[in-house]
Amino acid sequence: MSTAAPILLTPGPLTTSARTRQAMMVDWGSWDDRFNQLTASLCEQLLAIINGGDSHHCVPLQGSGTFAVEAAIGTLVPRDGKVLVLINGAYGKRLAKICEVLGRPFSTFETAEDQPTTAADVDRLLQADSTITHVALIHCETSTGILNPLPEIAQVIQRHGKRLIIDAMSSFGALPIDAAQVPFDALIAASGKCLEGVPGMGFVFAKKQALAAAQGNSHSLAMDLFDQHAYMAKTGQWRFTPPTHVVAALHEALLQYNEEGGLPARHQRYAANCQTLLDGMAELGLRSFLPAAIQAPIIVTFHAPSDPRYQFKDFYERVKAKGFILYPGKLTQVETFRVGCIGHVNQAEMQAAVAAIAQALQEMCRSELAREVG
Amino acid sequence: MSTAAPILLTPGPLTTSARTRQAMMVDWGSWDDRFNQLTASLCEQLLAIINGGDSHHCVPLQGSGTFAVEAAIGTLVPRDGKVLVLINGAYGKRLAKICEVLGRPFSTFETAEDQPTTAADVDRLLQADSTITHVALIHCETSTGILNPLPEIAQVIQRHGKRLIIDAMSSFGALPIDAAQVPFDALIAASGKCLEGVPGMGFVFAKKQALAAAQGNSHSLAMDLFDQHAYMAKTGQWRFTPPTHVVAALHEALLQYNEEGGLPARHQRYAANCQTLLDGMAELGLRSFLPAAIQAPIIVTFHAPSDPRYQFKDFYERVKAKGFILYPGKLTQVETFRVGCIGHVNQAEMQAAVAAIAQALQEMCRSELAREVG
Ligand SMILES: Cc1ncc(COP(=O)(O)O)c(C=O)c1O
Ligand SMILES: Cc1ncc(COP(=O)(O)O)c(C=O)c1O
Repeated sequence: MSTAAPILLTPGPLTTSARTRQAMMVDWGSWDDRFNQLTASLCEQLLAIINGGDSHHCVPLQGSGTFAVEAAIGTLVPRDGKVLVLINGAYGKRLAKICEVLGRPFSTFETAEDQPTTAADVDRLLQADSTITHVALIHCETSTGILNPLPEIAQVIQRHGKRLIIDAMSSFGALPIDAAQVPFDALIAASGKCLEGVPGMGFVFAKKQALAAAQGNSHSLAMDLFDQHAYMAKTGQWRFTPPTHVVAALHEALLQYNEEGGLPARHQRYAANCQTLLDGMAELGLRSFLPAAIQAPIIVTFHAPSDPRYQFKDFYERVKAKGFILYPGKLTQVETFRVGCIGHVNQAEMQAAVAAIAQALQEMCRSELAREVG
Repeated sequence: MSTAAPILLTPGPLTTSARTRQAMMVDWGSWDDRFNQLTASLCEQLLAIINGGDSHHCVPLQGSGTFAVEAAIGTLVPRDGKVLVLINGAYGKRLAKICEVLGRPFSTFETAEDQPTTAADVDRLLQADSTITHVALIHCETSTGILNPLPEIAQVIQRHGKRLIIDAMSSFGALPIDAAQVPFDALIAASGKCLEGVPGMGFVFAKKQALAAAQGNSHSLAMDLFDQHAYMAKTGQWRFTPPTHVVAALHEALLQYNEEGGLPARHQRYAANCQTLLDGMAELGLRSFLPAAIQAPIIVTFHAPSDPRYQFKDFYERVKAKGFILYPGKLTQVETFRVGCIGHVNQAEMQAAVAAIAQALQEMCRSELAREVG
């Protein structure tokens, strides 16, 4: 295994295909027709994934995923709106932080990191506070890998006549979301996650009527999705210099996504990756943090081995030397680490990763023994 | 000449070297030490260009150049500050627009698009309004290619005890700016300009004391340069997912920048490109918009041919078919087009571009004649 390019088992940036990276070998003129066509094709393919061509616009945005989340909140929540933020991890907390910095009134509802928010919770909360205009939800909370019940929550929100903003950063493209079934004003994702592009841009699916009504809401020039969309609709161009190579890579990644069989195939591959990982780790005696029923096939949190000789940094370096990059845990109370199931990897690579983990743990005990003996 | 990859004679995205693009063929873990080292090396090399290692921090930011400009204003201008915006083109106007959207008090001073702002102007304006705290200036106003007298203006601003924010997007790396000589609080540039990286990130050189005093100023979470810097200083990592491939490409481009001979060599090559272009176009009877004394060797605005058969779109497509991508004019009153002198190109390519332009103009006349005869 080449140490020059270990496989990334992280929630993005992740391992991309050589074909996707190869698409970055051309310099594109951002004013040129051919690049505009690339952008248009990108948005069309993205909308098709959520069956949203009639109901939503796709608004791409330069920057990381957080930029797109902030842009969605800043553009779509009026300054006198009020956001109910549903939290069971770090990315939910970030939604609340965004509301705070932007000066949008908000309240939070927080459950434990292994507890999905329920539709009943949301129903009760909306009943209790009629000033709430928007609900913000993390679909797959990447800090643990927990899946929140989006369709049920979306139905409740619609029944109350409120609007939904979904951060689907780590789930979009792998877990089905049908815009014709799940009502939402905004759904946010990015290039470097389950679509297997490289990082550098996000995109927001914004409900057409909601976006049309959003002029002047934004706290920012660069993150104004109303302006971004209006300019693109008029000229075919991005409002400010696009990350041309990132756009080209995502376009190429989408072609491969569709060739693979679209969302069902991507979901199946990741689910198989996840199962292979869970089975292999269980054999090593490593317990996953979440019960299977609420585990999304995106990233798995494992309890650290209880052996006192275990240290994440040492473990990480040993597994990396064998060709795999893992991810640290993001829980404050429990010592954990995470392994991603997403990216241009399959079951064979997951098996190899489990073998590398097994070896690394063995080495750590052995070297400790050596020290004790020596 | 391959139509698959025409040479970009545009002010960014521009033509990069194959070696720079090749650096994007690896997927980097954004949490990994090796990527952190890449970022640290990047910032160090960037600071060296302005001789700013002691006085300034380099704060990289995801997104296009405008994101970095907005971040600098939002972070460094306190909410009760007042910005004097110096305007002689579209990017100066954008500075004012940013102040407006962010709710920062501001006034503007606008000169004609072929008139540099002078130090005497700024002296007078600062004398007249003592509530001004910051002055914002475009170094090379890319909408024409005009160079504003930065060192003189900076001295006046310092004498008045005010602070300077410089948008050096299209000049940084090619025109000398010494932080030890030119006092400023912020200087902003981006990856895909004279450093010849690919687009997707900007960076702000922020004066250490100014940044240290900027906590809580920002209107945005994602664009808060105080937070961005504090997190990076503590962890070595970017606060949100970095555009890993863009960072790797910029790092590789900087190695080549230094191998070429750094700023003096880059400046010399672009100056030679610019002179070759000006000479060749003059021979074709095409006049440049700006007098030589205020023309930066970055991008040249040319008057459109007066021949009524000239149409920019037709001209653009013909030159493109010959392997060169030009740029439209950005003046409202005069019909112009622009040709960039920057990117991984040299005099031979500028000569070939002039030849392509000559041929295209000839064809346009000939095909018109053919229509008339036929
Ligand atoms: C659910 C979720 N939201 C937001 C983000 C933030 O994205 P970024 O790091 O690209 O800003 C992530 C990143 O992993 C995520 O998983
Ligand atoms: C002087 C100047 N400022 C700002 C920008 C905006 O940069 P971007 O298009 O990357 O947002 C440019 C782009 O060419 C520029 O030349």
